[in-house]
Amino acid sequence: MTNTLEVDGSRLWETLMASAEIGATSKGGLCRMALTDADRDMRDLFVRWCTEAGLSMTVDQVGNIFARRQGTDKTAKPVMIGSHLDTQIRGGRFDGILGVLAGLEVIRTLNDRAIDTIRPIEVVCWTNEEGVRFQPPMMGAGAFAGIHDIEFVLAQQAEDGAVFGEELKRIGYAGETRRDPVDIDSYFELHIEQGPILDEEGLSVGIVTGGFTSFGTQVRFHGENAHSGPTPMRARKDALVGLATLVNRVNEIGWEFEPKGRATCTRVEISPNRYGIIADEAEVTVDVRHPNAAQSQEMFDGVNAAISSCAQRANVRAEIVKQWSFGDIAFDTALINLVRSVAADLNVSHKHLLSAAGHDAYHLSKIAPTAMIFTPCRDGISHNEAEDVELDRTLPGVNVLLNAVLRRANQ
Amino acid sequence: MTNTLEVDGSRLWETLMASAEIGATSKGGLCRMALTDADRDMRDLFVRWCTEAGLSMTVDQVGNIFARRQGTDKTAKPVMIGSHLDTQIRGGRFDGILGVLAGLEVIRTLNDRAIDTIRPIEVVCWTNEEGVRFQPPMMGAGAFAGIHDIEFVLAQQAEDGAVFGEELKRIGYAGETRRDPVDIDSYFELHIEQGPILDEEGLSVGIVTGGFTSFGTQVRFHGENAHSGPTPMRARKDALVGLATLVNRVNEIGWEFEPKGRATCTRVEISPNRYGIIADEAEVTVDVRHPNAAQSQEMFDGVNAAISSCAQRANVRAEIVKQWSFGDIAFDTALINLVRSVAADLNVSHKHLLSAAGHDAYHLSKIAPTAMIFTPCRDGISHNEAEDVELDRTLPGVNVLLNAVLRRANQ
Repeated sequence: MTNTLEVDGSRLWETLMASAEIGATSKGGLCRMALTDADRDMRDLFVRWCTEAGLSMTVDQVGNIFARRQGTDKTAKPVMIGSHLDTQIRGGRFDGILGVLAGLEVIRTLNDRAIDTIRPIEVVCWTNEEGVRFQPPMMGAGAFAGIHDIEFVLAQQAEDGAVFGEELKRIGYAGETRRDPVDIDSYFELHIEQGPILDEEGLSVGIVTGGFTSFGTQVRFHGENAHSGPTPMRARKDALVGLATLVNRVNEIGWEFEPKGRATCTRVEISPNRYGIIADEAEVTVDVRHPNAAQSQEMFDGVNAAISSCAQRANVRAEIVKQWSFGDIAFDTALINLVRSVAADLNVSHKHLLSAAGHDAYHLSKIAPTAMIFTPCRDGISHNEAEDVELDRTLPGVNVLLNAVLRRANQ
Repeated sequence: MTNTLEVDGSRLWETLMASAEIGATSKGGLCRMALTDADRDMRDLFVRWCTEAGLSMTVDQVGNIFARRQGTDKTAKPVMIGSHLDTQIRGGRFDGILGVLAGLEVIRTLNDRAIDTIRPIEVVCWTNEEGVRFQPPMMGAGAFAGIHDIEFVLAQQAEDGAVFGEELKRIGYAGETRRDPVDIDSYFELHIEQGPILDEEGLSVGIVTGGFTSFGTQVRFHGENAHSGPTPMRARKDALVGLATLVNRVNEIGWEFEPKGRATCTRVEISPNRYGIIADEAEVTVDVRHPNAAQSQEMFDGVNAAISSCAQRANVRAEIVKQWSFGDIAFDTALINLVRSVAADLNVSHKHLLSAAGHDAYHLSKIAPTAMIFTPCRDGISHNEAEDVELDRTLPGVNVLLNAVLRRANQ
């Protein structure tokens, strides 16, 4: 039997546009960082919508919100649909948000048709996916999946000194529930691609098979303060020159692995960062990603070799503050096959993709069968106020989500 | 007749070490930025010392402090000795401070010997020479010399929002005097060299004949926010890459003009400067200096050519926020000759130098005959907590100052 249910596109769009007003920026984007007032306002609206849809709400200790539609089998584990409602500091209106509100629209559609499912279905809003105010990113999902201790999460501090646990209380989302992560059947996440492939190739759905292998390192160059006027070039230890040399080399490594590799420097801190003063400290975060794990490693080896040579050339000392990797994951084969067969049944154009960005689904994949569905975004732009989607090019993916979740919830 | 007066070295050192306690940093330097509490405490101490030395005090509208020792000719214009008591954010104990306290020591020595002079002698503390909290640098001297309007100075804002005029009132140094700059005879400033020449060559005094010709420009690169993971290299407009390319090119230009030329990038601002987000804005200040005006211009031409090519290579747009130049000055020949003949009479080893750093004396040279005396500093280090001098290598310069001022004040 083939389900061919369809969601209500204009209703979905209305929720997206209502969300787009909470934390709106002058350039048409969103600034809705985790645990800010705007995040609270959006959570309140989401909870109201879910309550109106008859869902029962729980909030866990790190503020993840679970909205549950009961199944006919009271003992069955739920199918989860989730993503996040927080944004970057100058983020867009769809990254994360589309996934949560598509989940709500799935529920509303089932309600409209009075369709019961055997398994419960839950829509989840994960706390602090973006990691812009509090690090690391994907924090709420990581805590749920047991990757991070609750205490670690609650103790994280923002640059302005705000403490995660206190901010969570302040906005009213410090819940008491401590869910057992083994208590879920499966996890689906729909997300804009954040890359140009679907948009360029005119496809509707990307079935995500896994992630780019990503490596990161935070590097600090130690030089020496001096006056830019009297200090001869030969006597300098300019930490900014060390950093700049590394930024250029990392960029070159990215180009050497074009088109699949990406290498980026971000988050620069210079000290004392005053006019006319040669920098004594310069820190930068390096990020390399490649769909092929071996090539990603090769890129990262190149970065590590560059760090010391850049330091030498600038007559400064390099310190590795920390290093990490993520994304070398594969999603669940059975769920991938389910999503693909639903897409075929619905005549939705699709291809397999790897995700180059991190997602809540990465953490969920460690504890439950997980699938991700990508939908197109204009020019592949995300983490930018100009981020945009077209409803007509988004709905096929939401309908694939609806029907895949429905099938899974009746298995 | 040859004067061979000598100052009291241990007394001078005591004042320097008392100053070194006000705003002291853990690494043995000073953080005494203009119009902070530490600046106020140092000013209070200086005023107390001057009052104890029988000097009459006035404070002008921008907080410059004048301490006057009367001359025998009531109508004669004064000889001024000045420098500054403020420091960089992680500055040293001698930059500027030595010049003011050497001036005080000159007065104390004349008092000890009950030596009258025909002209009055004034010791001056100029406000905000460093320009670290409020820009531009050399602000008080610039206002005195008529380079800056009083209203402009009082309106300047620090990054933390503090307003110059309000901070000046807060620390109790918003004076009422408005002095006529033509009403001075001459200006002497003793300062650590802030460069390695005297230290390396074992000389006691640098007689400063003028300044390096300095050019500066503030450049902003405009790129586009994007996620570092999914955004292919070819689709990027990474403002940080534009900036890094320029930093490296500027550094190369400095090396091409070694040993006399200096080219430096400082004061970086990146936006949004978050982990994993390609920068949409990156600003940097470029500074080139050379003793030869034509070669300095050639360096600056190279910088300007690099700005557009760096932007092109990073696929971003460059904007020149502002440009400036300073330092192409020559000090007064008669005063230079006076200082040289005093040094010769005292058997103090000396050479002519150009100043690569800006000084209050630059502004004073526009309105009165001006001379600068450099003394050695260890390894040429300044604007650094490790800045250091040896009393034995400093005293010859202070004695040259004493005797040169005495001769001038009796002319």
